[in-house]
Amino acid sequence: MIYLDNAATTKPLPLVIERMSYVMQNVYANPSSLHKKGIEAENIIKEASEFFASKLGCTKEEIIYTSGGTESNNLAILGVAHAYKRYRNKLITTQIEHSSVKEVFNFLKQNGWEVYELNVNNEGYIDLDELEREINDNTALVSIMHVNNEIGTIQDITKIGDIIKRINKDTIFHVDAVQSFVKMPISVKNSRIDLLSVSGHKFYGPKGVGFLYKNSKVRLTNLFYGGGQQKNIRSGTENVQSIAGMHTAASVLFKVYPSLETHKEYFANKILMQIEDTKVNGPKLGEGAPHILSITFARIKSEVLLHALEAKDIYVSSGSACSSNSNKKKGTLNAIGVAEGAIRFSFGIDTTKEELDYVVKVLDSQVKLLRLI
Amino acid sequence: MIYLDNAATTKPLPLVIERMSYVMQNVYANPSSLHKKGIEAENIIKEASEFFASKLGCTKEEIIYTSGGTESNNLAILGVAHAYKRYRNKLITTQIEHSSVKEVFNFLKQNGWEVYELNVNNEGYIDLDELEREINDNTALVSIMHVNNEIGTIQDITKIGDIIKRINKDTIFHVDAVQSFVKMPISVKNSRIDLLSVSGHKFYGPKGVGFLYKNSKVRLTNLFYGGGQQKNIRSGTENVQSIAGMHTAASVLFKVYPSLETHKEYFANKILMQIEDTKVNGPKLGEGAPHILSITFARIKSEVLLHALEAKDIYVSSGSACSSNSNKKKGTLNAIGVAEGAIRFSFGIDTTKEELDYVVKVLDSQVKLLRLI
Repeated sequence: MIYLDNAATTKPLPLVIERMSYVMQNVYANPSSLHKKGIEAENIIKEASEFFASKLGCTKEEIIYTSGGTESNNLAILGVAHAYKRYRNKLITTQIEHSSVKEVFNFLKQNGWEVYELNVNNEGYIDLDELEREINDNTALVSIMHVNNEIGTIQDITKIGDIIKRINKDTIFHVDAVQSFVKMPISVKNSRIDLLSVSGHKFYGPKGVGFLYKNSKVRLTNLFYGGGQQKNIRSGTENVQSIAGMHTAASVLFKVYPSLETHKEYFANKILMQIEDTKVNGPKLGEGAPHILSITFARIKSEVLLHALEAKDIYVSSGSACSSNSNKKKGTLNAIGVAEGAIRFSFGIDTTKEELDYVVKVLDSQVKLLRLI
Repeated sequence: MIYLDNAATTKPLPLVIERMSYVMQNVYANPSSLHKKGIEAENIIKEASEFFASKLGCTKEEIIYTSGGTESNNLAILGVAHAYKRYRNKLITTQIEHSSVKEVFNFLKQNGWEVYELNVNNEGYIDLDELEREINDNTALVSIMHVNNEIGTIQDITKIGDIIKRINKDTIFHVDAVQSFVKMPISVKNSRIDLLSVSGHKFYGPKGVGFLYKNSKVRLTNLFYGGGQQKNIRSGTENVQSIAGMHTAASVLFKVYPSLETHKEYFANKILMQIEDTKVNGPKLGEGAPHILSITFARIKSEVLLHALEAKDIYVSSGSACSSNSNKKKGTLNAIGVAEGAIRFSFGIDTTKEELDYVVKVLDSQVKLLRLI
């Protein structure tokens, strides 16, 4: 089995599973309980928060745990919109956001907000001048993803942060870092980020857990009401074992995240040379995220090729997994003018050159075959 | 260590941990992925849904997974309020709901809804005549918890369902079953329940997962927007390993849930006989939930006794764990007129008579000691 769908989700590290099992067996109390077993559970959360805060350059009180990337993005965007609606009514985002950002903005648009979607060029980059023109006194929020999940474009969040704060220091800057956290360094101070979304299962942690970094100065309206956990921002018993698992995953990977760039360039060049009528979608090789490669195979239907690879025990994605179940237009690919035939290969920390050689061989024969039909 | 805080949370069963580890190692793909590894993950969710549906008497499509009881309650109540606000504006609940229900209603009250809180008597029961009087054409929702988390009162949800639907068949009936699911039989058809909240970690499953049963005829406004998972009601990559773990927990316990009633009566009677000035809060022995016992020790501060027990490695709760971190008035105890000195003992499937004997001994000496001070 060759799993090249690591942007959809990753296989939890053995150490993550061990840690989660340990916590469930030994530190199972409710972190809100007043007794010391509760405090032990609370300490697991605190240690994780200290770790994440140290990596982002914020304080541990600024880490709010959620059920994952979708909740983090919703809490950030809906939270700001509801908290600031009396004062401002413009929101800025891009054409190529993940559906958990895009659909929130669609909802807000239907509810009276002015939502401006920044255009992207054919490599998926936004135009910084356009961003600059669109920010005004009325702009509550700019939400821009760090690494695009479909084509791997990396936006320059530090330049973006500078522009936003120079024009309106009160405009809140949200970054969806679901595809970049752990994989590339982020400093919320240097990039002047106020809100940042993270999902555990994208970096070898468990599903069902993530966090939102929230600058302590930013007000958010809750998505949930209840017991008042997490400084009353996110009620509900904390998912202790999964927070611990996500912490373990991040602490292993921050030490040894392998460079996947060599893999990506090797694999892409081999496909481009061996298979006719193929092209890389999105940023130039060497510029995008090392773990994401989108390639169009002309005169092929993505889904047909996906299933042909599956038959050889190779797992890839057409658009993004998160919305590929639905029939929506593929957001990013559509925005950069890619029509049909795109496959996303997303590499993992255990991907080998031998696997990639084999995949190219299979692709070569399958693409030829499918083009004959 | 004697853990009598099982209403706050339970220790996941070894089989649950094994199952979660297995799923994380072997079925780790994203259930939204189009390839067969994705479908395998989706099948784990479907099997769980079939199981839960069979236990509640609904269809598998009516099970919506969430991050736990708080999200389930919020999705149910906010979801109905937002979906039906153009048509009706009265909501009915009780004085003794969990904070994840109570605080949602407080939010709605501040936002223009008429919220009526049913009174309870000193055993925690609502008055069915008052309920009947309060339902009218304008009533969107009645939300009543099945088993109270602080004193164990069991409301007669079948009678309640009958009354609601007799007076206004369009009024939606929500039941917070976080403390009762698995522990007592529930039929959503017989009790005419439209929405029912469940949390995995209350019945030996993992934290961070739960579900909402939603009658297919009920419309809900989402809490989250995104990839459109779970029929677009709850976007976000499903927490596959935790859904599997919750399924395992429920399937073990539905077979062999032990009767805790003998424990409860034995323990309560021993305390009442041996320790002066004690009384059971809430329903009469034999009437309430077998796993929850609240006892007031006169002339003692709850928290002081809690810590005295903790020093002897015995873990209990004062009010409910979920809000005991905060300084809010204790909801249920306050509503039934209990002022100070209450301790909640909540029994688990592994609680033994020997443990209870030991706890009574410790209580006896500690209460005497504390009353001297």
